[in-house]
Amino acid sequence: MIHFKTDYMSGACEPVLRKIIETNNENTAGYGADPRSKHAASLIKEACGLPEESVVFFLVGGTQTNATILDTMLYKGHGVLCTETAHINVHEAGAVEETGHKVLPIADKAVDSEGKPTGKMRPEALLLWLKMFYSDDTYEHMVNPSVVYLSQPSEFGTIYSLKELEQIRAICDEYGLYLYIDGARLGAALAAEGNEVTLKDLSRLCDAFYIGGTKMGALLGEAVVMPDPKLLRHVITFIKSHGALLAKGHLQGVQFEALFTDDNYYKIGRHEVELAMLLNKGLKEKGYKTYINSPTNQQFFVLPNEVIDRLQKVATFELWGPRREKETPVRFVTTWSTTKADVEDLLAAI
Amino acid sequence: MIHFKTDYMSGACEPVLRKIIETNNENTAGYGADPRSKHAASLIKEACGLPEESVVFFLVGGTQTNATILDTMLYKGHGVLCTETAHINVHEAGAVEETGHKVLPIADKAVDSEGKPTGKMRPEALLLWLKMFYSDDTYEHMVNPSVVYLSQPSEFGTIYSLKELEQIRAICDEYGLYLYIDGARLGAALAAEGNEVTLKDLSRLCDAFYIGGTKMGALLGEAVVMPDPKLLRHVITFIKSHGALLAKGHLQGVQFEALFTDDNYYKIGRHEVELAMLLNKGLKEKGYKTYINSPTNQQFFVLPNEVIDRLQKVATFELWGPRREKETPVRFVTTWSTTKADVEDLLAAI
Amino acid sequence: MIHFKTDYMSGACEPVLRKIIETNNENTAGYGADPRSKHAASLIKEACGLPEESVVFFLVGGTQTNATILDTMLYKGHGVLCTETAHINVHEAGAVEETGHKVLPIADKAVDSEGKPTGKMRPEALLLWLKMFYSDDTYEHMVNPSVVYLSQPSEFGTIYSLKELEQIRAICDEYGLYLYIDGARLGAALAAEGNEVTLKDLSRLCDAFYIGGTKMGALLGEAVVMPDPKLLRHVITFIKSHGALLAKGHLQGVQFEALFTDDNYYKIGRHEVELAMLLNKGLKEKGYKTYINSPTNQQFFVLPNEVIDRLQKVATFELWGPRREKETPVRFVTTWSTTKADVEDLLAAI
Amino acid sequence: MIHFKTDYMSGACEPVLRKIIETNNENTAGYGADPRSKHAASLIKEACGLPEESVVFFLVGGTQTNATILDTMLYKGHGVLCTETAHINVHEAGAVEETGHKVLPIADKAVDSEGKPTGKMRPEALLLWLKMFYSDDTYEHMVNPSVVYLSQPSEFGTIYSLKELEQIRAICDEYGLYLYIDGARLGAALAAEGNEVTLKDLSRLCDAFYIGGTKMGALLGEAVVMPDPKLLRHVITFIKSHGALLAKGHLQGVQFEALFTDDNYYKIGRHEVELAMLLNKGLKEKGYKTYINSPTNQQFFVLPNEVIDRLQKVATFELWGPRREKETPVRFVTTWSTTKADVEDLLAAI
Repeated sequence: MIHFKTDYMSGACEPVLRKIIETNNENTAGYGADPRSKHAASLIKEACGLPEESVVFFLVGGTQTNATILDTMLYKGHGVLCTETAHINVHEAGAVEETGHKVLPIADKAVDSEGKPTGKMRPEALLLWLKMFYSDDTYEHMVNPSVVYLSQPSEFGTIYSLKELEQIRAICDEYGLYLYIDGARLGAALAAEGNEVTLKDLSRLCDAFYIGGTKMGALLGEAVVMPDPKLLRHVITFIKSHGALLAKGHLQGVQFEALFTDDNYYKIGRHEVELAMLLNKGLKEKGYKTYINSPTNQQFFVLPNEVIDRLQKVATFELWGPRREKETPVRFVTTWSTTKADVEDLLAAI
Repeated sequence: MIHFKTDYMSGACEPVLRKIIETNNENTAGYGADPRSKHAASLIKEACGLPEESVVFFLVGGTQTNATILDTMLYKGHGVLCTETAHINVHEAGAVEETGHKVLPIADKAVDSEGKPTGKMRPEALLLWLKMFYSDDTYEHMVNPSVVYLSQPSEFGTIYSLKELEQIRAICDEYGLYLYIDGARLGAALAAEGNEVTLKDLSRLCDAFYIGGTKMGALLGEAVVMPDPKLLRHVITFIKSHGALLAKGHLQGVQFEALFTDDNYYKIGRHEVELAMLLNKGLKEKGYKTYINSPTNQQFFVLPNEVIDRLQKVATFELWGPRREKETPVRFVTTWSTTKADVEDLLAAI
Repeated sequence: MIHFKTDYMSGACEPVLRKIIETNNENTAGYGADPRSKHAASLIKEACGLPEESVVFFLVGGTQTNATILDTMLYKGHGVLCTETAHINVHEAGAVEETGHKVLPIADKAVDSEGKPTGKMRPEALLLWLKMFYSDDTYEHMVNPSVVYLSQPSEFGTIYSLKELEQIRAICDEYGLYLYIDGARLGAALAAEGNEVTLKDLSRLCDAFYIGGTKMGALLGEAVVMPDPKLLRHVITFIKSHGALLAKGHLQGVQFEALFTDDNYYKIGRHEVELAMLLNKGLKEKGYKTYINSPTNQQFFVLPNEVIDRLQKVATFELWGPRREKETPVRFVTTWSTTKADVEDLLAAI
Repeated sequence: MIHFKTDYMSGACEPVLRKIIETNNENTAGYGADPRSKHAASLIKEACGLPEESVVFFLVGGTQTNATILDTMLYKGHGVLCTETAHINVHEAGAVEETGHKVLPIADKAVDSEGKPTGKMRPEALLLWLKMFYSDDTYEHMVNPSVVYLSQPSEFGTIYSLKELEQIRAICDEYGLYLYIDGARLGAALAAEGNEVTLKDLSRLCDAFYIGGTKMGALLGEAVVMPDPKLLRHVITFIKSHGALLAKGHLQGVQFEALFTDDNYYKIGRHEVELAMLLNKGLKEKGYKTYINSPTNQQFFVLPNEVIDRLQKVATFELWGPRREKETPVRFVTTWSTTKADVEDLLAAI
């Protein structure tokens, strides 16, 4: 069986696993107060061009991170703007609502020059939503937004340009909104062909974002970056009240130490993207149509159902939505453990 | 100034006010344990054809009622299905999300035979949503529904036929969902031409619904009907924990006693609907187009902006959404205190 | 039957009822935007010595008010300090916890010079709690306080001196805490012999407090006073999201207009307290012992169980806690509708 | 430096670390659907004497587990009974309240035959609380309990006897309460001298309990045992909505596979307890007094402040509450990585 189902099919990448083993017997303070977590935070601040007084800390998983950080940033009774396909709107089991906040999806079918969906929030669509909202006489009876949520790359593997993010930031400033970016697969965006948006750009443009570990070679862990230290009061208590404080916080620290040493985080991204592009090229050569044009580690193609049936005997991958009558969109994901042979085997089997 | 802005512009209708005055000096137990509340509950059970052991109790307002009752009916981590224009989705300031539950709007543009929007949930659309949801491999990561929310009349003043409600009930049974109906303006639906759905039908088809008082001649108060007494454990405590238990519950009791005596509740509905139809006929005769075809006390017309500007000098009414370039939909509402002269004056002024 | 059970046994006092009747047919905007509510807010600001830009608005009931306002004032993940016997800790069915916040009772048995419990928070006990809390190495894993909750009068009918409130305010300032006072029975405190604390003092010392209407002659309604207008963002939306926005807000406005005209609010308080003192004197003369020394409209005595049994045949009143073996504390409450004859009849019957 | 501060100072014990390394390159389904998690669940069911259809699943940490499982078991608006010193009441930053539920501590100073505090819930105290609660006329306005929370061992390291648990279970049955046991350090209780309570007993007596991994040699992970499969609807969705679903669930599975193979879980417990007893004996021989008599891996002694100051230069340990004037209770914890030499060094240094 060859695996293209998710980014979290196998354990830790080699440098991460090695670091875990090497430091296993260190005696450390719990809950992220250990020297490894502090060092990892420093490495990340450096990569982000942020001063030492900015805030970087570690949470366990993506849904937990989104729900916890958004709960910090949302005024009481306020909501978070996002795309209809945003992870927080569809695939987090209502974790944001569980904290009392409404997710406010902007209905907009953004497409690229080929007419393929991008899954991105268009600045124009955001601006229009806000204008319409505040021109409605009854808006005081409606959930007011206080945060914009994006993900880089988006759920569809596409990436925001620097200009798009700057436009969205300007709109946020105009309307008094925070900007938060979910970077579960940020390493793949950083490695994508044509990407212009660096960690430093994100640190300049966002009020908070996270650098995903789980989907980038760690066993678990997401690094939250908050450039403004005043945004979060009582970090430890707040995280703990969300059940999100890992006792052996050292485990998160050593993994991000490994990822932010020797460019490992970038190397993993490049590895994933290279193999994804190889797969993309191979499938196109075989005449299959992309469902979405993604430059990152998720590839979306429309396959005839009989091809899907045959392929499922030798490979794992996801149907992208319910099965359709004749052909169905599917998603292939590459990860740190995917090999060139895996891609070649998949292409041979199709 | 003539008033068509809302159903809650003026105080209590005459029989309600009289009862409040007459009983003002009665000494009663608080929190709904008074004899008036018990009597009112009995009158309502009788009107609904329900046995004495079923549950009827009183809350203060509509948003409070929706949020409290849905919180009772929703399994933890589950959501409530509704239309995109449902009051709980748009105009309740996120009160359902405040209790930790996601509102799940079904994207569907239901129209009538003239192509006008109905604002209703089509049984076919509900069924399709459920089929698609459970055929998605990732549904365990998505908010599962456990309640269907409708309103009778709908936000657009339209009413469900008996057949539609029976179809929706059957789908609820198939998928293990509760059915809850918001009856903020239920009296207007009961009085609408062509209405087939009685209180007895609602009691048979719903797991809970409420009979609106605030918008039907009371100062405040909504009567919640729960045919199955086992659905709600510790009624008093649950209501109190939502801040929804009125100390002088007697006030709710006497008002519903008045409304369910001498057919007052139905009379108010008929009064509202008759005047609404008079207004509808007059506006059509003047050549204005309906925006929505409503047989109840809300009337929706598309008016040229210059007519709107002129009319706003003599009458109150609502723009239905943001102002458009040339003409804008508006809403006129009749209530217990609206008079025939008010309607005639409006028609004369337009 | 003579009634001493609660402060909300009968309807509205005469001036309130008259005003409701007189203004019943006024056509008004909903949700508190009506001229009556605005006028009532102005009258209250004047009584409090507050400038027009401060915030006064109306909610329906006490539990709702406490839960809603505390949810505004509490930082996320923070808690509210109070006495063990505080209404929010015991008798509000967990409404504060329902909004996600922990109630932090301070264990302290405050007694007066006769050794009778006062139910008040001693400034020394508050200060000690805070010192102990922040000297605990693990405090980051514990719920940090951000508000102090008091009630005036307390649950035990006792009142805070000006000095006590000033000391508590100073401690709040030192520790960065908001001060919130529940004034469900505030009129009785204002009328108590020896009371030094005026509405102006409360406005100067509190970040928010409420002037109770329900227990002071209104059908319902509590007036929230927030001296600092910046404390609450989007008042209407926030209240609505808690299901606490009354559609016919005019009803709250006219009642507080009546209460804050002709000194009615103070007159009701004086009436209640005078009769309470008459009862207190009469019971003491008959040799019964006070359980608590209360100068307000709640009187607490320890009665032999056989007296209780006999008295329950002619009067309503509450056992103060579970029945004990031989004698049990009971509570008698006077209200706007209590008469001198009621008190004399009770004393005669005992 | 020698370490006695917490049970989570160092990484994974040897068999756990080995298993993580060995299985790192397995390709698995995410979110606990992997074969390792299933196998680990089977091993635990076997150890508990439970049939295959009962439910065992894995969460990341203790606070998360308590908040998530209690949110499942608590009826809406209900609360959880526990001791005043319970972890959920003191050291979880309000995570239970964050889900909308009140923690109901039972005020009771349970002591052993030497007068030392036990930190346990006495069956008599529980029964008395319930009797008093339901004999209070106002109990409908108070948070009703629906779960009893214990921990084995307790926060004070003491253990419940089989008889005590059976008595508490009988009270739960009488009052319709669930019984939930927090087993963060369960391995230490199983290994304690005099312990009578096995995993099979817990499975028979509890509605849910968890077998702690984090504090028993794992990097992270707690195994939740729910004998009755009907108690939890939609396990995956519910866990995800609490942000508690680990993407690489395989990591939890392999660790519990390791812990429940070759008696490793019991061996770790015995190791911890043996060293704790060695420490206990040594400190007593040196004339120090126990603060609590604990037969498990936490040892509580009262030390003179000057001894504490000296000892803090060579060892880590916790003050048990704020520092007192002359002598202060302290806690020493042994864990899988503690060695006999560590204990001897500590005793030598004191």
